[in-house]
Amino acid sequence: MSHLVRNEILGLSEYALKQFPCRIKLNQNENPYELPEAIKQEILDTLAGARWSRYPAFVPEEQIEAVASFTGWQKDGVLIGNGSNDLLQLVIVCLLERGTPVVISQPTFTLYKLLAQSLGAHVVEVPMRTSFAFDVNAIVDAANSHRARVVVLCSPNNPTGTCLSREQVRQVLDRTDAIVILDEAYVQFAKESQVPLLNEYDRFVILQTFSKAMAAAGLRFGYALCQPGLARQLNKVKLPYSVNTFTLIAAGVLIKRWEMIKNWIGTIVSERERIRRRLSRLPHIQAYESGANFILFETLQKTPTQLFDGLLRKGILIRDVSSYPMLERGLRVSVGSPEENDEFLNALQEVL
Amino acid sequence: MSHLVRNEILGLSEYALKQFPCRIKLNQNENPYELPEAIKQEILDTLAGARWSRYPAFVPEEQIEAVASFTGWQKDGVLIGNGSNDLLQLVIVCLLERGTPVVISQPTFTLYKLLAQSLGAHVVEVPMRTSFAFDVNAIVDAANSHRARVVVLCSPNNPTGTCLSREQVRQVLDRTDAIVILDEAYVQFAKESQVPLLNEYDRFVILQTFSKAMAAAGLRFGYALCQPGLARQLNKVKLPYSVNTFTLIAAGVLIKRWEMIKNWIGTIVSERERIRRRLSRLPHIQAYESGANFILFETLQKTPTQLFDGLLRKGILIRDVSSYPMLERGLRVSVGSPEENDEFLNALQEVL
Repeated sequence: MSHLVRNEILGLSEYALKQFPCRIKLNQNENPYELPEAIKQEILDTLAGARWSRYPAFVPEEQIEAVASFTGWQKDGVLIGNGSNDLLQLVIVCLLERGTPVVISQPTFTLYKLLAQSLGAHVVEVPMRTSFAFDVNAIVDAANSHRARVVVLCSPNNPTGTCLSREQVRQVLDRTDAIVILDEAYVQFAKESQVPLLNEYDRFVILQTFSKAMAAAGLRFGYALCQPGLARQLNKVKLPYSVNTFTLIAAGVLIKRWEMIKNWIGTIVSERERIRRRLSRLPHIQAYESGANFILFETLQKTPTQLFDGLLRKGILIRDVSSYPMLERGLRVSVGSPEENDEFLNALQEVL
Repeated sequence: MSHLVRNEILGLSEYALKQFPCRIKLNQNENPYELPEAIKQEILDTLAGARWSRYPAFVPEEQIEAVASFTGWQKDGVLIGNGSNDLLQLVIVCLLERGTPVVISQPTFTLYKLLAQSLGAHVVEVPMRTSFAFDVNAIVDAANSHRARVVVLCSPNNPTGTCLSREQVRQVLDRTDAIVILDEAYVQFAKESQVPLLNEYDRFVILQTFSKAMAAAGLRFGYALCQPGLARQLNKVKLPYSVNTFTLIAAGVLIKRWEMIKNWIGTIVSERERIRRRLSRLPHIQAYESGANFILFETLQKTPTQLFDGLLRKGILIRDVSSYPMLERGLRVSVGSPEENDEFLNALQEVL
């Protein structure tokens, strides 16, 4: 049978996320806060009255318009999907094929490279600079010398927390001919979104999600924003009904109630800064600035495994990112509730 | 921008499902019955207690085991997804690339060809025989002469209602070297599933869905069944978290309560037979036998558009399938509730 599977798939290694039972879960950059009961109830009541036997709308106009007004982008340039990964896959399938050059800044979210490789694309990886700043000149040079069709960027970048400025994104767009995919999964925790640049470039796609700031990772709701011409091409192969009735209802309510729920962003951002300050004072720990709801830190004496295991023994689960490029000594911790963060910081101090 | 999009995508035409307001909706093969309130409430109560801020399980073991026991297939050969289309796309992306020969029996569900074309595969279409029987010999010959890597079959077939027998499926598997994808979206309305054949062939994938017999098109839940070796390859590029918390909960409850809800299958099947008998007695109508929850019929005098429009003016929406290959005179009607079916039959008689 295996001779019938594409070589690129056979060549990939199987991916498994090991499950660890824990008391405090700070490994997936989830929001520590649950939606208020009243909002959940509003969603459940609407869902109770919906017809589950029927397909969702072929084009969910209402939710597309809600996302348009939420993001300030035109509705003809909005695609909604089953999490932003669904749309990332869509964009990649439309643009890449065997041999297509694609530039990825590293270290970053592993799915970009995995999806590109699964199509046999030629992945050109550009390392970040010291302290995990984006190396914009190197990205531009790589894109031009390889005649890259696509550049994939993530800002704030997972797992480093690093942000691209508007000027840096503009440089990549101005100085290359590639389509730039910018994953803004964590943008609500950062200073600014690059949505205003969509007006100026027809080679620009922004991905956003409700899994982080919106506290709705269980819902799977994401969207892509780009100019209508590109959106029309992407829509040709977008599977219909990819967002189910529950998530359509929930997404509409969350956007409507955003003013009620967004307060936790401020708490998460101030907790992030508090964690970073505390980490910086710990011996043999190097913590990095972050624009997201997590912090990357390096362990300069003990190994990442020692710290990870030590914390896990105390019931605290973080992410060991030491297998990422450049991150041999790296660990990533999501910002939890203030109590969870205290437990993490105290536990880490003990483990050290 | 468009020079950066793959040629296969540029070459596809944009797909739009026109929306028609209607009183009786018989155009998407949906189940006319809603889940009992008690079952919906059980799902909503469980959902109310779940943590929406958290990702679903990376591997939803519980639901995979439930599908395994529901289908009688081993859990290491079960993949669950966001509707069976999601898994169809996964299988196709893993197997096809530009130029790969793939055999599709026609007329059938349009998505198979669209997805294959979007990857640049070489689609070989084999027409059905008179009265829309599968032409197994021609399928086998086409697969062998084109050295097809994949054969896509749908049984009961949408939109003709035709079924493949176990012996016919076995012939395609025995007499070709291709991977056979068998879409069994409508299998609960037919005499038998081909799941028992999975034991014998490692080149065989069956797709099933909760959108039809399970009355849960709004949920988006589907699964693929195959031998574990192929499942491992497919899992390498399957997006994580593709089934959300709501649907995971609902799927588990639906399987647990299947005995309570499956009674409507008998009603739908007997209504299907009643509709077919009634249609056969109408002048200038040729109705076909069906193993699914819909019936294909041809209009021998008026045009399909005339019948479609006439019914729509009476508030009844069916599907005009006259743009499908071989179906220049074809229309498809889903089996509704007995009252809806009566309204449809009476309205059609008047329109004729």
